[in-house]
Amino acid sequence: MKTSRRSEVDPFIVMDVMEAARAHEEAGRHIIHMEVGQPATGAPNAARAKLAQEMEQGPLGYTVALGLPELRKGIAALYQDWYGVRLDWRRVVITPGSSGAFILAFTALFDAGAKVGLGEPGYPSYRQILSGLDITPVGIQTQMENRLQPVPSEIPDGLDGLIVASPGNPSGTMLDREAMGALIQTCQDRGVSFISDEIYHGIQYGTRPVTALELSDDVYVINSFSKFFSMTGWRVGWMVVPEDHVRVIERIAQNFFICPPHAAQVAALGALEGRDECQALVDVYTENRRLMLDELPKIGFDRIAPPDGAFYIYADVSELTEDSRALCARILDEAGVAVTPGLDFDPKRGHQTMRFSYARSTEDIREGLRRLSAFMAAEMSQK
Amino acid sequence: MKTSRRSEVDPFIVMDVMEAARAHEEAGRHIIHMEVGQPATGAPNAARAKLAQEMEQGPLGYTVALGLPELRKGIAALYQDWYGVRLDWRRVVITPGSSGAFILAFTALFDAGAKVGLGEPGYPSYRQILSGLDITPVGIQTQMENRLQPVPSEIPDGLDGLIVASPGNPSGTMLDREAMGALIQTCQDRGVSFISDEIYHGIQYGTRPVTALELSDDVYVINSFSKFFSMTGWRVGWMVVPEDHVRVIERIAQNFFICPPHAAQVAALGALEGRDECQALVDVYTENRRLMLDELPKIGFDRIAPPDGAFYIYADVSELTEDSRALCARILDEAGVAVTPGLDFDPKRGHQTMRFSYARSTEDIREGLRRLSAFMAAEMSQK
Repeated sequence: MKTSRRSEVDPFIVMDVMEAARAHEEAGRHIIHMEVGQPATGAPNAARAKLAQEMEQGPLGYTVALGLPELRKGIAALYQDWYGVRLDWRRVVITPGSSGAFILAFTALFDAGAKVGLGEPGYPSYRQILSGLDITPVGIQTQMENRLQPVPSEIPDGLDGLIVASPGNPSGTMLDREAMGALIQTCQDRGVSFISDEIYHGIQYGTRPVTALELSDDVYVINSFSKFFSMTGWRVGWMVVPEDHVRVIERIAQNFFICPPHAAQVAALGALEGRDECQALVDVYTENRRLMLDELPKIGFDRIAPPDGAFYIYADVSELTEDSRALCARILDEAGVAVTPGLDFDPKRGHQTMRFSYARSTEDIREGLRRLSAFMAAEMSQK
Repeated sequence: MKTSRRSEVDPFIVMDVMEAARAHEEAGRHIIHMEVGQPATGAPNAARAKLAQEMEQGPLGYTVALGLPELRKGIAALYQDWYGVRLDWRRVVITPGSSGAFILAFTALFDAGAKVGLGEPGYPSYRQILSGLDITPVGIQTQMENRLQPVPSEIPDGLDGLIVASPGNPSGTMLDREAMGALIQTCQDRGVSFISDEIYHGIQYGTRPVTALELSDDVYVINSFSKFFSMTGWRVGWMVVPEDHVRVIERIAQNFFICPPHAAQVAALGALEGRDECQALVDVYTENRRLMLDELPKIGFDRIAPPDGAFYIYADVSELTEDSRALCARILDEAGVAVTPGLDFDPKRGHQTMRFSYARSTEDIREGLRRLSAFMAAEMSQK
């Protein structure tokens, strides 16, 4: 049997890095993981306790396609708590991770051949899911002076949609109220559907992030329990859609997914009660970030935009290399630190960038920085 | 914002039936559920015990996109046990339910505009997922004399793919080795990709079902933990693909889903050890089926193909009504039994058919049959 043209999806380079790191560990080496975009921790205690209890009380069969009403209500309440936004819970759709939300959103909004803009560097799966659905991704090369976020003047003509992420991955930078508002306004003026990926909300280091829902109801907002709630492998996310899109999303979700994983929905209900635990993790990331911002420039990684949120630092390493993939491979081999070359996030400029993740323990971050420091010192002495 | 053309998905009528049944229950009435395609039972004890244990031991973060190697190996071993097929475990892909498997398979195999054949009556989401991916579903009106399964002479020219289900939903009928082999051969002769949905394997009442893998390695086989293993809400299924398709599927899965739900994969590992429990459920379905086949013809539902597997009976009610949807609504309102009109499964002929599910307890089936009998007796006496 032959495969389709649309199945020709780019591989994730980070997966190759993870596999190389795993091979080193299997061979007995100790590796510091600064490549992965997930916390070292699991779901909050409250989440696991809730599931352990419910698992013995009912069959956990299919839920309705839009998810458990109680969970949808809990998420609506979160918007009140986090942003002071009053949100009708019926606009909240539970999804199989934010990945499932992207599939639903793109299918609901765009036909084959549509064009959707996205900032580069950005989350690579936007491009790949769009291509898989025969939609054309249109990369927007963002600028360091705009903190690697798109601005209205950069939005090309002829788009059907625009997806933004704030805080962004890999940059960790945020769109403030004014910047987000300008993008939404530009899109609405031009009839461009606006999708806001807010998966890192809750993990921030100063100002709270702005949700697109503070500015308009005519947007799609995507979020997840993976990051702030530390539940990556559970595959439970959510989406807030305009009221008149709920029924459309429901029908697609019934057919594409039947329902989000029931056990994960139950755990997520528990997680909403475990927000103190999650906040304690943000305290760890805050210390990790402080260490990274103190040390990385001293070591030689000084071209970075300090992140407002998430747990990444994206570095311009153009003064060090023309081939960040090779540099990352050497850092793994010689220093025992796994880091991600920028090519996943920016096919054009990523050969001169790297992403450091600081989602692991502070002890790991300290050790990783020591190793990076020694590697770079040796590197410099050879030049 | 406007929605796409491909988002215009037909609703599931069974969902309306479920909602009407729920409304009756909320108003205090007792309803017998013969509409739903899921067991009343939950995951096997072994599955829940495994998860309860593992949940406290590790973070259950992302797994690799193809799923836990241990689970893939366990499934490969199942093919040896069930069919005597030696299967390389690396061809087994864990998916977010069989729904996720359909999305991956259709994306990997077909471009926008491709044509894929499917037997009618059949599982409605095939059509809807295909349409959502801009692929054209081509219905094949199967015949009662072929036990509602497609035969080679009915396969139209110009197809890019064919999907079959054995045992089928709603019919419960199976393709034997010869019939399955003839379809595969016809497809391979014409360059048509062949997908075999085997989600009801394990739930059979005589002959064991044939897997397409007994006949060819150049096929896609889709299955799930939802039915035999009684784990509908967990959203974990699997797919066996040709060796040279594994890498293609892996890349799509990395981007579309990241990974199947980790907790569900752990529970599935436990379920593989709990097959005795699952077999005991099949004994219940066996008794339920016997009751249904004894009673339904006496009651007046006599045009049925006795099911070889699954837990459905599909009835031709053309002698009773031209509007099975109205008849089902009256049966729910007047008799308190929820049944599904055939329109979900066969848009052309489904106004004269109904599906009875017997996945619930034997006590429920007895009571449902009593109620149906009383309803039909009153109905006949009025004619």
